[in-house]
Amino acid sequence: LRAPDAGQRGTIGVVTFPADEVGPEDVRITVAYAAICGSDPHLAEGFFGTEVPIGLGHELSGVVAELGPKVRRTDLRVGDRVSGNFVRFCGACQPCQDSRQQFCEHLGDYNRPGMARSVVWHESQVYRLPEEVSLLKGCLLEPTSVAVRIADKSRVRPGDRVAICGGGPIGQLTLQLMARYGATSLTLIEPIAERRELARRFGARHVIDPKDESLEDRTGEITGGAGFDVVIDASGSRHAVAGLLDIAAPGGTVVYGAMYPEDYELPLNLSDYLYRKELTLTGVFVSPYTFPRAVRLLDELDLEPFLQSVFDLEQAAEAFETHVGGAFPKVIIRCNDLADDGAERAGRR
Amino acid sequence: LRAPDAGQRGTIGVVTFPADEVGPEDVRITVAYAAICGSDPHLAEGFFGTEVPIGLGHELSGVVAELGPKVRRTDLRVGDRVSGNFVRFCGACQPCQDSRQQFCEHLGDYNRPGMARSVVWHESQVYRLPEEVSLLKGCLLEPTSVAVRIADKSRVRPGDRVAICGGGPIGQLTLQLMARYGATSLTLIEPIAERRELARRFGARHVIDPKDESLEDRTGEITGGAGFDVVIDASGSRHAVAGLLDIAAPGGTVVYGAMYPEDYELPLNLSDYLYRKELTLTGVFVSPYTFPRAVRLLDELDLEPFLQSVFDLEQAAEAFETHVGGAFPKVIIRCNDLADDGAERAGRR
Amino acid sequence: LRAPDAGQRGTIGVVTFPADEVGPEDVRITVAYAAICGSDPHLAEGFFGTEVPIGLGHELSGVVAELGPKVRRTDLRVGDRVSGNFVRFCGACQPCQDSRQQFCEHLGDYNRPGMARSVVWHESQVYRLPEEVSLLKGCLLEPTSVAVRIADKSRVRPGDRVAICGGGPIGQLTLQLMARYGATSLTLIEPIAERRELARRFGARHVIDPKDESLEDRTGEITGGAGFDVVIDASGSRHAVAGLLDIAAPGGTVVYGAMYPEDYELPLNLSDYLYRKELTLTGVFVSPYTFPRAVRLLDELDLEPFLQSVFDLEQAAEAFETHVGGAFPKVIIRCNDLADDGAERAGRR
Amino acid sequence: LRAPDAGQRGTIGVVTFPADEVGPEDVRITVAYAAICGSDPHLAEGFFGTEVPIGLGHELSGVVAELGPKVRRTDLRVGDRVSGNFVRFCGACQPCQDSRQQFCEHLGDYNRPGMARSVVWHESQVYRLPEEVSLLKGCLLEPTSVAVRIADKSRVRPGDRVAICGGGPIGQLTLQLMARYGATSLTLIEPIAERRELARRFGARHVIDPKDESLEDRTGEITGGAGFDVVIDASGSRHAVAGLLDIAAPGGTVVYGAMYPEDYELPLNLSDYLYRKELTLTGVFVSPYTFPRAVRLLDELDLEPFLQSVFDLEQAAEAFETHVGGAFPKVIIRCNDLADDGAERAGRR
Ligand SMILES: NC(=O)c1ccc[n+]([C@@H]2O[C@H](COP(=O)([O-])OP(=O)(O)OC[C@H]3O[C@@H](n4cnc5c(N)ncnc54)[C@H](OP(=O)(O)O)[C@@H]3O)[C@@H](O)[C@H]2O)c1
Ligand SMILES: NC(=O)c1ccc[n+]([C@@H]2O[C@H](COP(=O)([O-])OP(=O)(O)OC[C@H]3O[C@@H](n4cnc5c(N)ncnc54)[C@H](OP(=O)(O)O)[C@@H]3O)[C@@H](O)[C@H]2O)c1
Ligand SMILES: NC(=O)c1ccc[n+]([C@@H]2O[C@H](COP(=O)([O-])OP(=O)(O)OC[C@H]3O[C@@H](n4cnc5c(N)ncnc54)[C@H](OP(=O)(O)O)[C@@H]3O)[C@@H](O)[C@H]2O)c1
Ligand SMILES: NC(=O)c1ccc[n+]([C@@H]2O[C@H](COP(=O)([O-])OP(=O)(O)OC[C@H]3O[C@@H](n4cnc5c(N)ncnc54)[C@H](OP(=O)(O)O)[C@@H]3O)[C@@H](O)[C@H]2O)c1
Ligand SMILES: [Zn+2]
Ligand SMILES: [Zn+2]
Ligand SMILES: [Zn+2]
Ligand SMILES: [Zn+2]
Repeated sequence: LRAPDAGQRGTIGVVTFPADEVGPEDVRITVAYAAICGSDPHLAEGFFGTEVPIGLGHELSGVVAELGPKVRRTDLRVGDRVSGNFVRFCGACQPCQDSRQQFCEHLGDYNRPGMARSVVWHESQVYRLPEEVSLLKGCLLEPTSVAVRIADKSRVRPGDRVAICGGGPIGQLTLQLMARYGATSLTLIEPIAERRELARRFGARHVIDPKDESLEDRTGEITGGAGFDVVIDASGSRHAVAGLLDIAAPGGTVVYGAMYPEDYELPLNLSDYLYRKELTLTGVFVSPYTFPRAVRLLDELDLEPFLQSVFDLEQAAEAFETHVGGAFPKVIIRCNDLADDGAERAGRR
Repeated sequence: LRAPDAGQRGTIGVVTFPADEVGPEDVRITVAYAAICGSDPHLAEGFFGTEVPIGLGHELSGVVAELGPKVRRTDLRVGDRVSGNFVRFCGACQPCQDSRQQFCEHLGDYNRPGMARSVVWHESQVYRLPEEVSLLKGCLLEPTSVAVRIADKSRVRPGDRVAICGGGPIGQLTLQLMARYGATSLTLIEPIAERRELARRFGARHVIDPKDESLEDRTGEITGGAGFDVVIDASGSRHAVAGLLDIAAPGGTVVYGAMYPEDYELPLNLSDYLYRKELTLTGVFVSPYTFPRAVRLLDELDLEPFLQSVFDLEQAAEAFETHVGGAFPKVIIRCNDLADDGAERAGRR
Repeated sequence: LRAPDAGQRGTIGVVTFPADEVGPEDVRITVAYAAICGSDPHLAEGFFGTEVPIGLGHELSGVVAELGPKVRRTDLRVGDRVSGNFVRFCGACQPCQDSRQQFCEHLGDYNRPGMARSVVWHESQVYRLPEEVSLLKGCLLEPTSVAVRIADKSRVRPGDRVAICGGGPIGQLTLQLMARYGATSLTLIEPIAERRELARRFGARHVIDPKDESLEDRTGEITGGAGFDVVIDASGSRHAVAGLLDIAAPGGTVVYGAMYPEDYELPLNLSDYLYRKELTLTGVFVSPYTFPRAVRLLDELDLEPFLQSVFDLEQAAEAFETHVGGAFPKVIIRCNDLADDGAERAGRR
Repeated sequence: LRAPDAGQRGTIGVVTFPADEVGPEDVRITVAYAAICGSDPHLAEGFFGTEVPIGLGHELSGVVAELGPKVRRTDLRVGDRVSGNFVRFCGACQPCQDSRQQFCEHLGDYNRPGMARSVVWHESQVYRLPEEVSLLKGCLLEPTSVAVRIADKSRVRPGDRVAICGGGPIGQLTLQLMARYGATSLTLIEPIAERRELARRFGARHVIDPKDESLEDRTGEITGGAGFDVVIDASGSRHAVAGLLDIAAPGGTVVYGAMYPEDYELPLNLSDYLYRKELTLTGVFVSPYTFPRAVRLLDELDLEPFLQSVFDLEQAAEAFETHVGGAFPKVIIRCNDLADDGAERAGRR
């Protein structure tokens, strides 16, 4: 088993890990594609206090290679095209029983590097891809599930005015979803011009460049002075987050949907924002309860722009450089060269 | 003041009513367009126990002609292009105080015939049209608000599978909204081929002809045996409603969003549908709390197909015949011939 | 292993089943108490199409006797006092992933007779009892979880007017919970006088005898003509259910929380109840996501009246007779005579 | 008309204001009792930028003296015992139409000093007191509505663990409501011993003295390390608010339900609290949609401890001193000496 890793903090390379055994309820997946995620650099920097070398990769697709003897899923066969959730929810701890799987006490147990020839997951982590969805598209299931979770937590109503801050993959997927989830006055705030353009393709009615334009002026103009009912941060930038409180409408919701510098403290004026404006603030850590819906949305979303930069596993270091370079909204690693009926089908669409 | 009426039950004609006075908080609107609603025939048949002649018309747009001396709205001027809600919520009764305006004890007080040269409404019923929305489009605000209300009550989540039964204006607007509100496997059930075609334009992924096809078979095929998470009836047909319980997924919601024959009783097997399948059933009577959002959605929706059949007020009887004929999804009456900057702007779009 | 069964339909006896093996993630529990549930007779009559002899008992408490080698729960030790959920949610099927565990495709896999010397459950079914809760009280965890689920589905707001129909254990527990969950005008509808009295002890402000009193007149009187915001059926009676639609307030919710005769069809007038009154109807099948909260509520509820009739396992037939006799709101079987520090502690309270 | 005012900032006195006219939809109320609110000092200090002298008093009860000629309420008669909401929601502005009356653009129009011989309100502000509720109790309707609003925004589920910070009237009423709204592990955090004692009477299972005890240690002990699912601040203290984030359980809700110093900024670590713990933070400004329910709750709550300190209007300055002294949880001003059948009835209860 080989996975790109961070040998030293910051270094990406291909290392050999011992292969995980297939337990009674486990599934071995031959990985087709694994996408690089915006949080992979955070990981490399040791955000979760992890040790190096750490295997990376949690956005993947592949083909079922082996099923453990006690797998209960009746809908899984060897050869099935699948994607999935890189964390397993144990189902037995208090948070799991309380419909808060995101705080499962065993969240890390099955979190294994997916940028590898193969990966072993518990059956509960595996989702079959619909016929219409290619393996290449399929590796975007996990970020799509994050967008769905953000939408769930935003409690957006049809017709609500929505702004999204940050035009990386999470921001763009969320924007697409919001464009399909009843948003009006849909606006992307993003410093990079190409990403603003992309957002227009995905349904943004307005874009704001936070470096050149006044957030409040543009918001006033776009919303007739009312503000946005829902504001979503997908930038994780300490420069962006405080201003979002000012562009939210009274009674609105602000979802801090990114990861944030560990030492950053947002100065929250309780009187202005929670008392007078009655804002609701919330965040997203892990995205449970969203995968069945995210699977169905894959074919509805416009994912082509995310599938333009693909590298072989041997080129992992180069892939990460390209990712950091930022020219492509998403960089993908081909871990095995698998035939994909789905891809062909998708090509025809 | 003249309004098409039902002189005898079933007869449509133009009669002269005394003009309503403009009270201190009232607004007189010169009506531009008034659309015929699917429930107007119900009214003519005396559904609410009304007497004839009854003035009709509650889907309208127009221009503000006069403002009462105590109007508090600071955003309304004579000459403003507006639409609105045909019922006024008193704001003082128990249901109004309990966020259930739809049961306002004074719901009928300002319900006045809108298919007329002018109409007088309370300021709280009036909504300004956005610049981008023409007066012609604007008369569709009220049915749009019904679609928003149906969406609200459906509590749909992004990615939920949705089916809509009935491809009249309410069904089609709801379908469009659902296509924009996160639905997957979006399906219209409708016997008329033209309406099924229209639904495809509006975003339906599948259509079912209930006369020729098995609802259950097609549902199984479309949803992989799971059923629809949200099922919406907009047909009002006694032949359609019972079958909808069978195509809903366990845990799903069925919104009975139409009007139903007064003597019709749905035979609801509690053990099968509420116990084993845990369905949630609900309905829609009046659509409060939705207009500000519906106004914003007008410019997002594809309303052109509803604007193809327009008659002058003098041709009201002919207009109703055309409506009953069913060749057009919506028939509209031009009550005054007003210049509309908005219309031109809309034409450019 | 011995469990009371229904040798012939309707006959209760003690039979010997082979003992279940303790799988890697399983827990063997020495059963202390198992309560008889209102649905046990339904089971005996073959409601779920089950074959006889069928082991009964799903409301139980006990002490952990053995833990499988792969149990992940770090909070479970041999000797712990526990109760639990008689069904296991697999965690891997679509409904489980979609936060609808109640429709888990493997719901039956671990549903084993609890009126036995011991029972083997998956670790995810087991809940530790708080120190303050005796083993005797603990066997009421499962019906308490049903009451919590009914409360969840009712979406009651603080101050809502609530009526409950049926004063069996489920109705009484739900009533207690509602008395603690913001209900006003709290009313029990129940033909048996003793049960109406019990409801008063539990917080009912009003009681109605449906045999002697007019439901609508009393409702008008109690609610000042408004109706109940939330109506809950816990009777399962075909004579009761239709009338509940009439005592619900416009915009209210009716939870059909019982089991119903399989052939019974409620004649639901869509125009009156879903259109004009906009009622929301729903039901309860299985009660997931409620156990952690139900465990904490055990010590808050007044359970003494349910703990007055206890039989040894050998007297199972007699216990069922007593249950059917109806003199006691709950009949409990002592499956093993275990020392219970908890019981003593509870005695002191 | 005379009302206690703040002649100079900080001074309370009785001044004569011109009497408000009774408009067509208005109601003149002869005030019986007006309670002093914790925010009255904030007002005197000019929190809302108000000028002196400012009339005070927004928690009141009284008797209907006169009805305007166009009052639509059919349930109001001269002589009726009433209480109400000191703000009027216009019903016509965007926030009012969007079910966000708390942001009504005309919120201040009818906000008139209630510590006066009489007050004129719009009919929509008036609520009839139930027979069982005395005029003395009735003046607590408004703070009760705040507690209901806090409960609504907390989205508490039955069985959730709840902590409340601050044992003033708002905190104590909220605590009582939570004790009746499904809370477990109910805890009050409050430095004053008498107020902690009072909380026990009202249903607190635990109390914490933040000056002497470690909030985190006690929380760990009370919740078994899990934290509180719902944390409510009713202290408004800058010393209290930050610590509340640490005692909330992952996935929990923190309601900042008080008023806060205008310059205070809570340092909110986004990574810790919104990302990793996924907390939801919200606040309460004004309390719409709660009065019909608050009226019904008046008779359910234990209000006696709040009714122990009553002064005549002439003694207003003394009353405010007593309020500031803090020996009584609530200080009430008798504005007219009215006979009260209700009071007698209440006395009998
Ligand atoms: N909670 C979860 O489950 C989860 C899952 C995945 C990702 N995440 C987090 O979500 C965030 C977004 O992920 P991603 O993959 O989309 O990351 P990304 O590619 O880094 O996207 C962030 C975008 O925000 C832009 N940005 C920076 N400063 C800004 C400002 N002041 N205003 C507006 N936009 C600004 C960035 O532009 P520049 O490139 O010019 O800086 C970039 O385009 C990351 O923090 C990631 O760690 C969270
Ligand atoms: N609650 C409210 O506030 C509100 C507001 C407006 C309208 N409504 C009600 O909503 C309903 C829809 O209004 P609308 O204007 O869209 O009415 P419509 O034009 O009459 O549309 C109903 C559609 O349902 C179709 N249909 C009939 N039987 C069907 C079946 N068995 N399966 C599937 N479709 C079937 C009809 O086809 P055929 O023409 O071939 O019969 C027609 O296309 C009406 O009942 C109306 O009264 C309610
Ligand atoms: N969904 C679930 O997960 C679940 C779980 C447990 C139980 N249940 C179901 O919930 C129901 C209640 O259970 P339980 O143990 O409390 O049953 P129960 O002891 O049979 O209680 C039912 C009560 O309703 C009364 N009743 C009968 N007709 C009535 C009427 N017309 N109006 C008002 N009350 C009437 C009965 O009185 P009489 O004795 O005089 O008939 C009895 O007191 C049962 O249907 C049971 O199967 C469901
Ligand atoms: N949003 C609204 O609609 C609304 C309506 C009414 C009131 N309010 C606000 O709600 C708040 C509470 O009102 P109230 O009338 O109950 O006020 P209050 O009587 O001042 O109560 C506040 C309580 O918090 C206690 N406290 C102070 N520091 C604390 C700490 N570090 N930890 C815990 N408790 C602490 C105070 O004790 P000490 O006396 O020892 O300081 C006092 O008992 C006020 O801010 C008020 O302005 C808001
Ligand atoms: Zn877990
Ligand atoms: Zn009203
Ligand atoms: Zn399952
Ligand atoms: Zn307003």
